[in-house]
Amino acid sequence: MPIITLTTDLGLKDYYVSAVKGSILGQLPNVTIVDISHQIPSFNIQEAAYVLKNSYPSFPEGTVHIIGVNAESSAQTPHIGILVSGQYFIGADNGIFSLLFDKVPDKIVELTISHDSQNPTFPTRDIFAKAACHLARGGTLDLIGTPKPGVNERIMFRPVTVGDNLRGSIIYIDSYNNVVTNITQSLVKEVGKGRDFNIRFGSHEIEKLSKTYNDVVEGEILAMFNAAGHLEIAMNRGKASQLLNLHMGDTITLLFQ
Amino acid sequence: MPIITLTTDLGLKDYYVSAVKGSILGQLPNVTIVDISHQIPSFNIQEAAYVLKNSYPSFPEGTVHIIGVNAESSAQTPHIGILVSGQYFIGADNGIFSLLFDKVPDKIVELTISHDSQNPTFPTRDIFAKAACHLARGGTLDLIGTPKPGVNERIMFRPVTVGDNLRGSIIYIDSYNNVVTNITQSLVKEVGKGRDFNIRFGSHEIEKLSKTYNDVVEGEILAMFNAAGHLEIAMNRGKASQLLNLHMGDTITLLFQ
Amino acid sequence: MPIITLTTDLGLKDYYVSAVKGSILGQLPNVTIVDISHQIPSFNIQEAAYVLKNSYPSFPEGTVHIIGVNAESSAQTPHIGILVSGQYFIGADNGIFSLLFDKVPDKIVELTISHDSQNPTFPTRDIFAKAACHLARGGTLDLIGTPKPGVNERIMFRPVTVGDNLRGSIIYIDSYNNVVTNITQSLVKEVGKGRDFNIRFGSHEIEKLSKTYNDVVEGEILAMFNAAGHLEIAMNRGKASQLLNLHMGDTITLLFQ
Repeated sequence: MPIITLTTDLGLKDYYVSAVKGSILGQLPNVTIVDISHQIPSFNIQEAAYVLKNSYPSFPEGTVHIIGVNAESSAQTPHIGILVSGQYFIGADNGIFSLLFDKVPDKIVELTISHDSQNPTFPTRDIFAKAACHLARGGTLDLIGTPKPGVNERIMFRPVTVGDNLRGSIIYIDSYNNVVTNITQSLVKEVGKGRDFNIRFGSHEIEKLSKTYNDVVEGEILAMFNAAGHLEIAMNRGKASQLLNLHMGDTITLLFQ
Repeated sequence: MPIITLTTDLGLKDYYVSAVKGSILGQLPNVTIVDISHQIPSFNIQEAAYVLKNSYPSFPEGTVHIIGVNAESSAQTPHIGILVSGQYFIGADNGIFSLLFDKVPDKIVELTISHDSQNPTFPTRDIFAKAACHLARGGTLDLIGTPKPGVNERIMFRPVTVGDNLRGSIIYIDSYNNVVTNITQSLVKEVGKGRDFNIRFGSHEIEKLSKTYNDVVEGEILAMFNAAGHLEIAMNRGKASQLLNLHMGDTITLLFQ
Repeated sequence: MPIITLTTDLGLKDYYVSAVKGSILGQLPNVTIVDISHQIPSFNIQEAAYVLKNSYPSFPEGTVHIIGVNAESSAQTPHIGILVSGQYFIGADNGIFSLLFDKVPDKIVELTISHDSQNPTFPTRDIFAKAACHLARGGTLDLIGTPKPGVNERIMFRPVTVGDNLRGSIIYIDSYNNVVTNITQSLVKEVGKGRDFNIRFGSHEIEKLSKTYNDVVEGEILAMFNAAGHLEIAMNRGKASQLLNLHMGDTITLLFQ
């Protein structure tokens, strides 16, 4: 059965998510719908990108991913469809796609399909669901859009190098209160060229990377590259973000030697 | 595949919802189960009605909707099954059905099916799931119930006219803290006959309807008919219910000129 | 369609649960995945056992249940697969299986399948999903493991008899704030042999069992054997755990006469 996933900031309390699902099932009865998350903070494309980036590689080819975060279109942020590694992604070109992939997409189109609803404020249900069902049925991007050369970039969310320092920021705090940064293992390799480094944030400094949470004693701070390849600040069986008073957007600096 | 949806106050923490799903899947393996919401506040049929009323029109014909809110039956509130616009609804006749539909149902029956569980306190799993699977399989209401002329009314939840005023109340606060009232666009048309009106609540008064959240500057109060056709009080990118101190049940008055 | 259920402490905010689902769907497209709960408190196998124990009997034969709580394996807590009453269970042998079943399993194997992921910290996705798909396809436990004589016991979580008293503890607080103990109806029958008893906790004492929440007036304390057969302390339409200041692990004593 074809698979359509949903990543939204719609929450689980309201009727919105189920209306999207009803719309999909009405068009494509034999589909499997998977919730990636509906708890993305409103308009937070950075968190949406981190969650989906780490989830989609587990899905098989042909899966269609709907991104219902900041989904309104404008001249600058049209609705687009993307093919990457055999999977499809649909959303507004609000910058999220530049955070989602490490490689150049195989195909990008600006969606041209219209919708028949009176309500212009719910593109996830009225436009994305329609496009997703078309793709999940085996339809092509060409039939629902016109080619587009690239996606909008969100450079402000990328780490920067300042002299011998690499300065990143906190992009995600998981449900265990582990703190995830936008500094990836591949970037550190590229910038650091094998040099050692200290990790500084607030008044803290960590001198040594751990491999797992259990590398330090219970309650101690650690830094490690997590399963997603991102630098993570954590405490063994503790709540790092709370106890260290760390928040989304806070700066983390790597000082290379 | 047939579709069965669930609208309950059972929450996501306990085993109840999954027991209902297991029971459904045991009777009808090829069913798609969709969660409308399990976060309806306990016994709150008004909120359940608002959520389901806005969700079910997105579902295809033949869908069966289970309502597991205030689900215990009594002589006054029997378990019933309803057919409206090709979709089925199952629940206790506790007044919710008078809030759910704008039209007279095509068919209403009082359920006569028994159940074989020892536990008399879980009708959603033991009775509604059985009835829903029967209907989802293509079975008829006649086979599981006896005809019933109408449903219980909940007049207290309806807006009232007082002179030139239309007085309604807050029936729902969504996850964005937008405030939804029981005053609908069609009611305003009927009562107002095209006259202008001011909207008064607490110490606030709004003189002009907006069409979208962006019609006012960020942080400003607005009133509009939402996608569901209900009058909604909101703030552009703000949390109306918190900042205006509005709660479920609070009065909203339309003063016609 | 085959059914795989998930009981985890992964929460709904992060990407973990959807990665597990993507992995399952990639291996077995025609599967129905049911969430039992993802809100088990971290490492709390007692709560996971209570929730799953009350949910799995509602599922049909052939269902495969993945337990993603305390899922890391060690020499003492290997990954195992179990067959009980025609249903399969997969998890780490951390003691949870001794809390889950009232009968001796029909078959127990220690899993021998390997996985191809680089990430050693996510057995639910990388090992349990693989084993579950094998079983859901109709495969046998023998093919993915070697026989094991029994499971690890967690005696500390069992009630004890002290003279004429039976002393248990609070193992679960549901979303209505009802308090569930590990004292079951069958244990009381066995120990009490029909004698009357008082129920003591904190400074409270209850002399009479109720049959339903409505047996006492609104706001009054009651004790009853719940649908799951466990002794439960509740208040009719009230929040027992909050108002009586009861917490997980607190002692409840039955004084037999």
